[in-house]
Order: sequence, then C-alpha cells, then structure tokens
Amino acid sequence: MTETAGILGGTDSERIVVDAMGGDHAPGEVVAGTIIAAREHGVRPILVGQAARIRQILAAHDALGEIPIVNAEDVVAMDEGALAGLRRPRSSVAVACRLIRRGYASALVSAGSTGGVVATSRLRLRGQPGVTRPAIAVVLPTRPRPTVFLDAGATADAKPEMLVQFAMLGTAYARVRLGVETPRVGLLTIGEEAGKGDKLTRRAYELLAGDVEGVDFAGNVEGSDLLTGKVDVVVTDGFTGNVALKTIEGAVRLAVAEMRQALTASRTAKLGALLQRRRLRHLRHRLDSETYGGGVLLGLNGTVVIAHGSSHAPGVAAACVLARDLAQSRIVEQIGERIAANRPHRLPRREESR
Amino acid sequence: MTETAGILGGTDSERIVVDAMGGDHAPGEVVAGTIIAAREHGVRPILVGQAARIRQILAAHDALGEIPIVNAEDVVAMDEGALAGLRRPRSSVAVACRLIRRGYASALVSAGSTGGVVATSRLRLRGQPGVTRPAIAVVLPTRPRPTVFLDAGATADAKPEMLVQFAMLGTAYARVRLGVETPRVGLLTIGEEAGKGDKLTRRAYELLAGDVEGVDFAGNVEGSDLLTGKVDVVVTDGFTGNVALKTIEGAVRLAVAEMRQALTASRTAKLGALLQRRRLRHLRHRLDSETYGGGVLLGLNGTVVIAHGSSHAPGVAAACVLARDLAQSRIVEQIGERIAANRPHRLPRREESR
Repeated sequence: MTETAGILGGTDSERIVVDAMGGDHAPGEVVAGTIIAAREHGVRPILVGQAARIRQILAAHDALGEIPIVNAEDVVAMDEGALAGLRRPRSSVAVACRLIRRGYASALVSAGSTGGVVATSRLRLRGQPGVTRPAIAVVLPTRPRPTVFLDAGATADAKPEMLVQFAMLGTAYARVRLGVETPRVGLLTIGEEAGKGDKLTRRAYELLAGDVEGVDFAGNVEGSDLLTGKVDVVVTDGFTGNVALKTIEGAVRLAVAEMRQALTASRTAKLGALLQRRRLRHLRHRLDSETYGGGVLLGLNGTVVIAHGSSHAPGVAAACVLARDLAQSRIVEQIGERIAANRPHRLPRREESR
Repeated sequence: MTETAGILGGTDSERIVVDAMGGDHAPGEVVAGTIIAAREHGVRPILVGQAARIRQILAAHDALGEIPIVNAEDVVAMDEGALAGLRRPRSSVAVACRLIRRGYASALVSAGSTGGVVATSRLRLRGQPGVTRPAIAVVLPTRPRPTVFLDAGATADAKPEMLVQFAMLGTAYARVRLGVETPRVGLLTIGEEAGKGDKLTRRAYELLAGDVEGVDFAGNVEGSDLLTGKVDVVVTDGFTGNVALKTIEGAVRLAVAEMRQALTASRTAKLGALLQRRRLRHLRHRLDSETYGGGVLLGLNGTVVIAHGSSHAPGVAAACVLARDLAQSRIVEQIGERIAANRPHRLPRREESR
C-alpha cells in the first residue's frame, strides 16, 4: 500500500472506502452503485478489491480514473464464516479498514456477510476509547418517524454496562440520522415496570435510570412497542436484537402473504387485488429494505455501513451516501464525547495511531 | 374447603377449575364461557371465585346447579403485580391450585394477568419432578401446520439445562395439541450453524445435539423461521420468547395498518378495499388470537391454560375445552415420563401428596 498516499492525495476525513468484493452481486453492482454515489451525490469513494476486475467495470461505465482503486487480491466469500476473514489480512475489508486506520477515509461500506464484516472490522478498527463492544444500529420504518434499534447482532453476550454504551451510540446516531435533538431511549424488555426483565435488563435499567449524561432514558419498552415509534432509540443486546429483527421480517412476510391470499380468495376482490399487487410488493419492499437495507456498526474507530448482501447499485449508492453523511457529521467523535462525559475518571483520550 | 369433597363428589382427573375472577370481563364473560364449555362441549368445570356473584350470573343463564362453585373471596386485580397475588392464599387462583393439588381437578383456566397466574401457580402447584422451571407454550399460526413456541415468558433467566427441559415439554405438548407423532424441535438463536448464538444457546445446542431421549432435535432456527413452520417446536428462554412474541404482534399490526392504508390510497382500490375490510379484520384477528389467544403453562403438577385477558365467553369456552383435552391426554404424566427417561440416575419418582 505504499502507493496509496500518492493515489489518494493525502488523508481525508470525509472520504469513504467501498468494499468492492462484498455482496451477492459484487463487484459489478457494487462498483456501479459507487459510481452513482460519486456522480450524482458528490460522494468521494475509494474502491478496494481486485483492481483488474474493478478497472474493467469502471471502464464499462466510462468511469476509469473517476474513482481511486486500492488493490486487495483476497476475497472472502459470502458463505464463509466470520473467522475465515480474520485470518486474511489481504481481504478487501481488512485493507479497507487499514485505509481508515491510516486516515485516508473515515467510513467503510460493505455488502459482505455481516458476521465477517463485523469480526474483521472489530479486529482491524478496534473499539473507540471507552466503548467495550460495538453495536449494529438499524432504522425501523415506524410512523410518524423512524426508530433506531440496536444492537441488531454485533454483540450477542452483552453486559449491562454495554447496554448503557449502546444507549449513547444510539443517541448519537439518532441525532445524526433522524435529526432528533434529544432522542428518547427505551430499553427492550418484558413488562414495562422497572423490576421486569431478565438479570441483564434489570441491571441495565438501574444504570440507565441513574443519570447518564446525554441520554434521555424513557424506561422499558416491550416487543410490541418496537414498531410504534414510542421512543426514538430502542436498546437491547445483540442476541435479542437479532432475533427481534428477523422476527419482524418473518411476521411481515407472513402478513403480506396472508393478505395477498385474502385479497384473491373471493371473486369480487380479485380485480382490486390485481390493481393492488404492485402496492403489496412495494409495501413489503419498504418494510424489508428499510429494516434490512443496512445496518451501521457503531463504536469502532471508523463507521461501517453494512449494506444488504443482495444490494443492487441503488442500494449500494444509498449506503455510500449514508456513510458519507455519517463521516461528515463526525459520528465517531460525537460518540466519543458522549462516552467521555460519562467515564468515571475523565482520562485523557488515548491518542490514535493515525 | 372442608365442604369441597361433598360438593364435587370425589376426585376427578378430567375435571378442570376455572378462575372466575381473572380477566378484563370477569366474572360475567368467564362464567358465561364456562357454561358454554359445559353445555356444548361436555366439559366438567368447577368455578372458583366470589360465590355470591358467580351464583347470580349462573342464575341469569338459568344454569344454577349445573356447575359446582368453590368460594374464594379475594380477588387479584388485572393490574396488580405478580407478587401481590403471592401474598394472598385466598385468591381465586390460589384456591384453584389447591383444588388441583388435592386431586379434585387436573387443569386450571385463568384469564388473569399472566405474571400473577404464573407466580401463584408456580408457588402453589410446584414444578413436577425433574422440571426446574415451567414454560409457557403458545401455538403460532404457521402454515401448513402450526408451531409450538416456548417459553413465551414464564422463565426469563433460563439455564441451558432448562432449555433442554423446555424441548421435552414442547415435544409432549405438540404431540397432544398438534397430533404430531415425532415433533421436530428447533432452538431459536442467531445464525443457523452450531457455533452461533449467545452462551446460553451455544451450550443448549451442545446438550440438545447430544442424545436427548424422546426429543427430535433439528438444530438452530432464526427469528425469520418462527412463522414458516420449519419445525414443529421452537425452544427459547422466556425473555427472548416474550420479546419475539410481542414483536410478532407489533409487526402484524403494522403490516395490516400499512396494507389498509395502501388499499385505500388510490380511488381505484377503494371499492375493493371496502369489500376487503372484513377480511383484513379477520386476518388480524386470526393472527392475534391464535398467537395470543392463550398460553399453556407446562412443567407444574397441573396444567394451567392462561386465556387472553380480554377474552369473552367464546374465548373462555375454547380455553376450557383445551384444558379438558390436556387433562384427558394426561399431559403432565407424558412430560413426566419424558423427563424421567432423561434423568442421569433414574430415581423412583417422588410420590405426590395427592
């Protein structure tokens, strides 16, 4: 990577790196999406992956020279486990993380397998000072405004203190992503009263109810509140969060399927149903894509936008724009300040090796 | 209760007790539902609660003398916590449990608050030999056939060994309730591979994958599989189970609401929508009521059917029929045999104090 600085022309905190090799339709759709982001939204990306293939695709879009490329020969397949990627320092995600560590960019976009991206970026970016474990934040399509939900699966065995940190991550994210000045944070558990839940959430409740600076704690919420927009941020551990998120996915699928069946069951309803088919598809797409369109891994020294593995060019472009917006609003620094304000002894922040 | 034996005419393992005072519409709808169960389905119930009020309602239905009454003066309100009921030995649930302990009946129906019913019946019925903690089993409305899901919230902090016991409870219940000879059991976790999940599920996987007699373990399932009917029984801890169940409820509500909006958004669709409104209502009702219509608390010395708090007479009647069916099929004994077959040292079963 000795040539990197030359290619990129110095460090740049608003530049993003895109893992060209991650995703079901990589690298073709990923590169195409990156071009859209650059041309139509002014995003300044770096593509990381097998340079020869990337160049070919750029050429096909008449975009050679528009986007810098950093070569990474090794590719981690979608179905490889999280550990497979860890052993490969030349994988596109690993190289992308190094670019961030060295200050050439401050956010990463990957449509690679979530487990692999999380494991590799945790290892290579490391947690930002004061954050014990990272969390994946997703935006649930609630009305009238969306809800930030975390952790969607980065940290399965969380401790109460981590849930408090997740509340800070989620607060910073909701401010940037949803533009809510003082997001209300709920703790996902069973039963609304303070004493309800398992050991983890009961202790987390105590910690959150005691003054956490910069977090507006609104108490417990239940699974049925997840999609009602009752609070702006819902905090949970990565195990419960992942189960809940996938349960939403399954339930919406079932409901749409049943609905479709109900709509076509009677002859009177058939004509209307025909007209509505596109709407049904749209609805499911909306619920699916807003929920699963992408998660953002927060709490590391650099933000990682995990796009849906099945993303096509528009999805990748949207993920690039999100990554750029998060970089521009200095989400990592915002989280850092919140964490620092709540550390028992305000140690000077560890200097980063940038 | 010295007069009980006289009223009831001896012990009876197929008789059920109904908590007349539990539920949003108690005692009116509860008593009315019990009468339906007795008259139309041949159920033989005992009503427990404030005798004077029950007698009045029976009289209004011209059913005085048809159903025995056991008096319990104390009433636990729907919004009282779980602990409130524990302190009250003369509550209708406590008295009902005593009738079961003494052999006058073998199952209980209550539409009272779940937390209260679970706490009281755990204390008064106690776990059957070899079962460390009870679990609430619900039936999810999957296609082509339903799925038994447990624990829906009785035991929030479960240990791996308890999840194995829940697998046995669920297997016995699926056989009786769904008529599946060898139910396939899945473990709810995140990621399908053996090593995925949190500490609890990873250890539970190891235990279940090692031969558990009478349990056909099919491996891990994810939240998105909950409603696909992939397995007959899904096992999880009471925290995750309750969150997942309430998440389904919330997701289905959102999907139906969105669908309704989509259907009425265009003028062409409006006529069709009018015709379909009843279908939409029916769908939501089906998904709601089958899922939340009632849970069954398994693993105690007596089965407890927890009807929905908002149950009207037909819901109570259905719960009574279910309780009778479970009593008839000797679900407690079936669970006992399965547990006994898997105990490391096959101790003789502790004699019950019946």
